Parts: sequence; C-alpha cells; structure tokens
Amino acid sequence: MSAEGDPGRVRPGGRTARVRAAVLTAAGDLLAEQGFDRLDLADIARRAGVGKTTVYRRWGSVPNLVADLLAEMAEQSVPRTETGALEGDLQANARLVQRTLSDPRQGRLFTAIIAAATCDTRTAEALRRFYEVRIDEWAPCVQQAVDRGELLAGTDCREVIRAVSAPLYYRLLTVGQAPVEADADRAAQAAVAAARAGVFTTQVDEYGRADSG
Amino acid sequence: MSAEGDPGRVRPGGRTARVRAAVLTAAGDLLAEQGFDRLDLADIARRAGVGKTTVYRRWGSVPNLVADLLAEMAEQSVPRTETGALEGDLQANARLVQRTLSDPRQGRLFTAIIAAATCDTRTAEALRRFYEVRIDEWAPCVQQAVDRGELLAGTDCREVIRAVSAPLYYRLLTVGQAPVEADADRAAQAAVAAARAGVFTTQVDEYGRADSG
Repeated sequence: MSAEGDPGRVRPGGRTARVRAAVLTAAGDLLAEQGFDRLDLADIARRAGVGKTTVYRRWGSVPNLVADLLAEMAEQSVPRTETGALEGDLQANARLVQRTLSDPRQGRLFTAIIAAATCDTRTAEALRRFYEVRIDEWAPCVQQAVDRGELLAGTDCREVIRAVSAPLYYRLLTVGQAPVEADADRAAQAAVAAARAGVFTTQVDEYGRADSG
Repeated sequence: MSAEGDPGRVRPGGRTARVRAAVLTAAGDLLAEQGFDRLDLADIARRAGVGKTTVYRRWGSVPNLVADLLAEMAEQSVPRTETGALEGDLQANARLVQRTLSDPRQGRLFTAIIAAATCDTRTAEALRRFYEVRIDEWAPCVQQAVDRGELLAGTDCREVIRAVSAPLYYRLLTVGQAPVEADADRAAQAAVAAARAGVFTTQVDEYGRADSG
C-alpha cells in the first residue's frame, strides 16, 4: 500500500517498467478469466503484487488501464511476415489473427475487451487504435502487391487487411466459435479474390469492377 | 404483482401474446438504452406495465428473456429479396444488415446482445440460433446462383451469406463505427468475387481455385 516510487516516470527495465509489466499481465489475466464487468483496480493490484495506491495513481480507472494494456499489446505484437506474394502474406496475417483468437487466454481477452468497448468510449477508442497499429503493420504487404502489378492502383490497402480479419472475428463474436486454420486460409483467399476483382479500389461499379465507368 | 393469467400458454392475439409483446419490447428498449449488465427483470416488468410475478414466472431469468427476444426477432425479421441475380440478392442482404446495424435502437440492441453473449452461454446459444435462422432465409439465393451456373457446384452457400455480414459486424464491433451503404455494397461485391473464385467451395487450393488438385 506504500507509494511505489514514481509510477508515471518510465525507466525501461527499471522498477517502473517491472511494475507496469506486472500490472498489465494481471489485468490481462483477470480480463480473460472473468471479463470486464467485474474488473477492479484493487483486484488487479493484489494479483500483480503491487500497491493499490500505485495502481490508482498511475492508471486511475479500469478503462485507462485497459487502454494501456491495448497500447502494450499493439507494441508487443508480432511483425508482419513477408513471403513475396500477396496470398502468402495475407495467409500469414489470417493465421496470426486466427491463432490469437483461438488461443484460450488471448481469445477470451479480446472478446472481453470488445464487449467492454461496446459500452465504454475510452475502451472503444483504445481498441480502434490497437487495430490501426496492426493495420499500419500489415497494409504495406498489400501496397507491395499493387507495386508489383498484382492489384489495381487505387486499392485501399487497409481495407484489404480488414477484410482478412472480419470473418474470423465475426465467427468468434456471433457464432461463438474460435476460428480454425481452414477459416484463416479461406479468409485470406476471399480477400485476395475480392482485391483482384477490384472491390477494394476507391471507385468500383456494382459488379466490383474498378473504374469501369 | 397479481398473477397475469397463464403466461406460459400461447394464445396468439390474446392477452398472453400482448403481454409477451410488451415485455419483449421493453427488454429491447432497455438493452438498447443501457446494455445487458444493468438489465433486470423487475425493471423490464415496470417498463412493460406488466406484473413482476408474470415476468419472473414466464421467463425466470434475463438470459431466458433475451433468448425469447432473439427468437421473436428471428421470426419477425424481413424475408429475403429476390432480384434474380446473385449480386442484387447479396446487395439486398448486405443493405438490410447495414440498415439494421446503423439504426440507433437496433444497432445498440445487437451490440448489447453480442456483448452479453461473450459472457453468457445461454445468450450465446440464442444468438447463434438467430443467425442460423437468418442464414436459412438467405442461403437459397446463393443456391439459385449455383443452379443457374453462376457459381461452382459445391459452393458452401451459408458461408457466402456469412461473408456478406462479416465486414459489417467487424466494423461495428472493432472500429466502433456503424457501417454505411457503401460498406454494404462492398461487402456484397467482395462475397460475390470470392464465391466466383471458388473460395467457398468445400475443396479449394491455396490460390482460391476450386478442386484444381
């Protein structure tokens, strides 16, 4: 319960960083185990073995702490795979998302945060930023396909990456089933087929052909 | 607080049906307004102008009531549009989903139920059944396209319908933005392009070509 140094000051590898790591791990564990509703800063502090005062002073509220957890998850997340071909790159992306969502802890963590985001604007904004960071990481593989002439100029690269994730999240959130590897591969193939048909170019006609008018 | 007749006995158009309609409307309103967490059978009874005993005796718990609401929503939902062409049919489906998710009451109602389903198995099962009913309604338009020779035999018609909805729900739940009509049209076009490329046939190779091996 004593003050834990200056929790606002970042000293990588030092006490502050260790406290942050312990608290974020505890928050992620509790979110995965019991969801967002019952999440409480005092419980998180206890689980992390950190003084409650430190947690209250540094994060102030559960949504602030979850936002910091999402920032950390974005920072720690896996860099993109480069296979040299659009299919391979998007398949790698899809399988990474699929493995995350089907991992017991990570899958429950994501569903808890997404559920929380539906009723908390702070969490919703942090979640949106998390996905922006992930899309920033992966969109260049679509741009490379445009540069190689595999896809039409004007393809919305970010939207292609969103299209890969969408069916995997949809399955998890509406059907309640974690996606399997075959779902990942199909999600990647569907995004490639739609991108090749020009669906993700800025101007498409009703048949998905780009700039035909 | 007095007994409200026999709430378990269905008399269409009679008192029981009127009570059910009032209670389900009240439950939907409260879900849309304040989410699942704070939902309480007593509040729902009060809002519906129905005795609390009736509501407790007929539904017993909030998840049971939400399951009944989802059954009613499935039953009342709009029949599919038949345009005679796959693009038109899937566009109609996509726009229907998009209008639902962007409607203030309906959009909030769906996000509240989806959030609830992440932590309640009874609600998750009812939600899954709701989507099964909707897919039952729309999958025949994909089968008709197969019968017309527009798509390969062996196309998983239900998966094509899921592919139309996925990006619209994904946008709502992870980016926190209600989809607009252009999103709906693009979702339909992407599903058509992927279906034509054979991505949704049971056997596809890594490039999305059907049964090539």
